[in-house]
Amino acid sequence: MPDQSIPQARTPDAPPAEPVSGASGISRRALLGTAGATGLVLGTAGGAVGYASAPAGATPLTSVGAGRAMFHGKHQPGIIEGLQARGHLVAFDLAAGAGRKEAAALLRRWSTTAERLMAGEAAPHGDTDVARDAGPSSLTVTFGFGYSFFGRTGLEKQRPGALDPLPDFSSDHLDRSRSDGDLWVQIGANDALVAFHALRAIQKDAGSAARVRWQMNGFNRSPGATAHPMTARNLMGQLDGTRNPQPTDTDFDQRIFVPASGEPAWMANGSYAVVRRIRMLLDDWEKLSLTAQEQVIGRRKANGAPLSGGDETTPMDLEKTDAHGDYVVPLTAHARITRPEKNGGAAMLRRPFSYHDGIDADGTPDAGLLFICWQADPLRGFVPVQRKLDRGDALSKYIRHEASGLFAVPGGAAKGEYVGQRLLEG
Amino acid sequence: MPDQSIPQARTPDAPPAEPVSGASGISRRALLGTAGATGLVLGTAGGAVGYASAPAGATPLTSVGAGRAMFHGKHQPGIIEGLQARGHLVAFDLAAGAGRKEAAALLRRWSTTAERLMAGEAAPHGDTDVARDAGPSSLTVTFGFGYSFFGRTGLEKQRPGALDPLPDFSSDHLDRSRSDGDLWVQIGANDALVAFHALRAIQKDAGSAARVRWQMNGFNRSPGATAHPMTARNLMGQLDGTRNPQPTDTDFDQRIFVPASGEPAWMANGSYAVVRRIRMLLDDWEKLSLTAQEQVIGRRKANGAPLSGGDETTPMDLEKTDAHGDYVVPLTAHARITRPEKNGGAAMLRRPFSYHDGIDADGTPDAGLLFICWQADPLRGFVPVQRKLDRGDALSKYIRHEASGLFAVPGGAAKGEYVGQRLLEG
Repeated sequence: MPDQSIPQARTPDAPPAEPVSGASGISRRALLGTAGATGLVLGTAGGAVGYASAPAGATPLTSVGAGRAMFHGKHQPGIIEGLQARGHLVAFDLAAGAGRKEAAALLRRWSTTAERLMAGEAAPHGDTDVARDAGPSSLTVTFGFGYSFFGRTGLEKQRPGALDPLPDFSSDHLDRSRSDGDLWVQIGANDALVAFHALRAIQKDAGSAARVRWQMNGFNRSPGATAHPMTARNLMGQLDGTRNPQPTDTDFDQRIFVPASGEPAWMANGSYAVVRRIRMLLDDWEKLSLTAQEQVIGRRKANGAPLSGGDETTPMDLEKTDAHGDYVVPLTAHARITRPEKNGGAAMLRRPFSYHDGIDADGTPDAGLLFICWQADPLRGFVPVQRKLDRGDALSKYIRHEASGLFAVPGGAAKGEYVGQRLLEG
Repeated sequence: MPDQSIPQARTPDAPPAEPVSGASGISRRALLGTAGATGLVLGTAGGAVGYASAPAGATPLTSVGAGRAMFHGKHQPGIIEGLQARGHLVAFDLAAGAGRKEAAALLRRWSTTAERLMAGEAAPHGDTDVARDAGPSSLTVTFGFGYSFFGRTGLEKQRPGALDPLPDFSSDHLDRSRSDGDLWVQIGANDALVAFHALRAIQKDAGSAARVRWQMNGFNRSPGATAHPMTARNLMGQLDGTRNPQPTDTDFDQRIFVPASGEPAWMANGSYAVVRRIRMLLDDWEKLSLTAQEQVIGRRKANGAPLSGGDETTPMDLEKTDAHGDYVVPLTAHARITRPEKNGGAAMLRRPFSYHDGIDADGTPDAGLLFICWQADPLRGFVPVQRKLDRGDALSKYIRHEASGLFAVPGGAAKGEYVGQRLLEG
């Protein structure tokens, strides 16, 4: 492979940096490499140099860099897009003295920044250049409001009932300092520097209006690392998300998004995100035999097929018994308990990141899942499933919920609008 | 983009999982999807299922997954290969009572595991399945020995003088618990789950012979995120590694690797790695104007050209002055001080990862560079450069060296040999 034999350093006889143009027509370039020839210099305030549009016919970006999600639309980005290789979750609390007016200004700044960065452009007020040379790399930035936001801004009457605190689950070991928050931002991209660049820009925009409450980093498989059309794996080695609803399902929108006519009105086309930092007790899990792991989950580890047979897409046969009359899919199997058919048809769209924050002093890995699920109503999505898991899930011995958040994520901003405007100026 | 419109979940009408075959002929597959048809079942001990070789004509892996570095060779992998998107550094100390014999057995286990994982195969003694379905993804695993290793194993006479502790630098703020170590392992891959899988396998192999001393995670740009042939950027937004020696340089091997006839004999074709966790004080750095940042570095931020003119590859004109008679490249500029011509021709190959471990309680980012440089002799590579930087580098106000390690990385293992065998059985 060429990329295995050449160090990362410059190739002396490579051509000088050229502007690039993505498949989407969006571009980024090294300004000084071409500014003289084209004059397309976009200066920005704050000391940084802007990125300019590339002329037609420039070198195309490769697939990873060229991936682009749209900021404007019916829904916010970062909900139905494919898993991204890198993610940052960050929650903010409004600063003392900051209220509705400051929050509105912040969401306006954030929306401008998100729109520009998702198009592969520089941040509007100074840019760190960390994403320079890269394409948008499927960057998404998603904004949500937590329960406490509404009291701090005098908007209690606009607070959705769906934001009422989640019930306590017996398996919770929640660190409140890493839970909840007035505001929540989810950043995802297929390039780690593009994601970090966005995180810094979002933090800078917060200025004196809000301070970081907690921040977490995550990852998923890189695009192109596998040729399999299978569901992603998590750090337990399990296929994770097999039963996710599909956009082609007739009731997909109804389950995942608040209807256009829904309540409150500012949440039209929005969704609710449940965020859980779920540590995996990998030292214990990895001591189990493959058979024992499959009994815990209720599916084959290699291909996700139910223990009752078939492949990943085969419906689970809950009644099937073995020669001893025992259920082939154990009663406590995770996949049996979480089946939508067993939860009043509830469904949530799981769109997680794995996380790995190193090794604790006792030698155990601080690793697991940044579980993020999306639903029109948490009381019909996450809550009933988690309640059932809480009562008898064989997996619960191997995981620990360490942080939790619930956020109202409004619909996408129309052109000229900022995210949350219908709440903050409603 | 298709990857922007389809969630990560299974595509119901996609074909069932098929075996895949990389450009290198190496493969990985979902065992249960094809085992019946080919009979190529490789069972492994410990409860996990092995990955089998794919039959000819199977679907090729995409570029990221198919990337493969070789375990056997003159040098260990992970030194001259291109930057990888994800990295783990981990240091181990031998357990109380473990000596040369246990270390030899450990290096043998590690070498077997590294060879198999780098070929996209399952770990030899139980496998977590976290990398299942993915290709090798340019995985490299590199092993080194620290100063303390030799005392613990009765091999003091084999300890290279080059491992003598680095001098103290005035700018050091070193956390000894995250520095040094008997053994060091560097893991890199273009897929985060492949890298994590290797880290867990290496930890498992350590068993009761060694315990983790410290562990760090890093990242670089994803392959394909940029079409530019430029040097990689760091989290300050700077091109980082512009003056890296090139394998095409006539003296490249001489500067980076211990000669085949070098001392001690077990280090033939080896190299010395200096590892520094360098925190970037990004809040301070980002407050500087672009001009001020460029004066600190001595190069243009956008394209890495020296302030004296040209492009990234143009030699720096140190004597050039402006209209006021001041040097265009300031005397304290980082790039002026680190020029190889100013350091007795010393050269090191920099091959870093960026890191980001979240946000500290005071709101500042715990982010920066896992600086890793490679050289035939640290006293001619890293030390003289760092000594000069210590005396007047304008960049020093914006960075903080928080951890340090120096490791002897022996040459590559021949077939049938394990890494370090010439030391441990010499």
